[in-house]
Amino acid sequence: MKAKVYVTLKSGVLDPQGKAIQHSVESLGHRGIADIRQGKYFEIAVDPEISESDARSSIEHIAADVLANPVIEDYRVEIEA
Amino acid sequence: MKAKVYVTLKSGVLDPQGKAIQHSVESLGHRGIADIRQGKYFEIAVDPEISESDARSSIEHIAADVLANPVIEDYRVEIEA
Repeated sequence: MKAKVYVTLKSGVLDPQGKAIQHSVESLGHRGIADIRQGKYFEIAVDPEISESDARSSIEHIAADVLANPVIEDYRVEIEA
Repeated sequence: MKAKVYVTLKSGVLDPQGKAIQHSVESLGHRGIADIRQGKYFEIAVDPEISESDARSSIEHIAADVLANPVIEDYRVEIEA
């Protein structure tokens, strides 16, 4: 089983890295880019003998405790069979 | 219009950061996690007057030139209306 976790900054939190990327992109001549925000993405392989509900609960804990900082970041978990 | 870009290490490329996260997760007592790989995730807001095909071509160029290193990374672009 495979899980994907997406971690993004909450909407009120400034993203200087994203702004720097946006400026690079503009200086390369790309027009019409209003905003770029950077997040993190994790692919997690889960042993097949773990049930989907156990995997989801485990991955939710991992996302909240290790992968994201819930004070400034949101996360989203997707489980693929 | 919104675009999402996912950047992941190619499958043959070692991911020491992902391995470090995996060890942390195991030391916290989570069982059954076979592998963790870290990638990057970008949310790009595109001006609404840009057409979807122009946006896709622009974002594909941005992904290949700025967001990903195509020697060691793969990327995937999704456009949302």
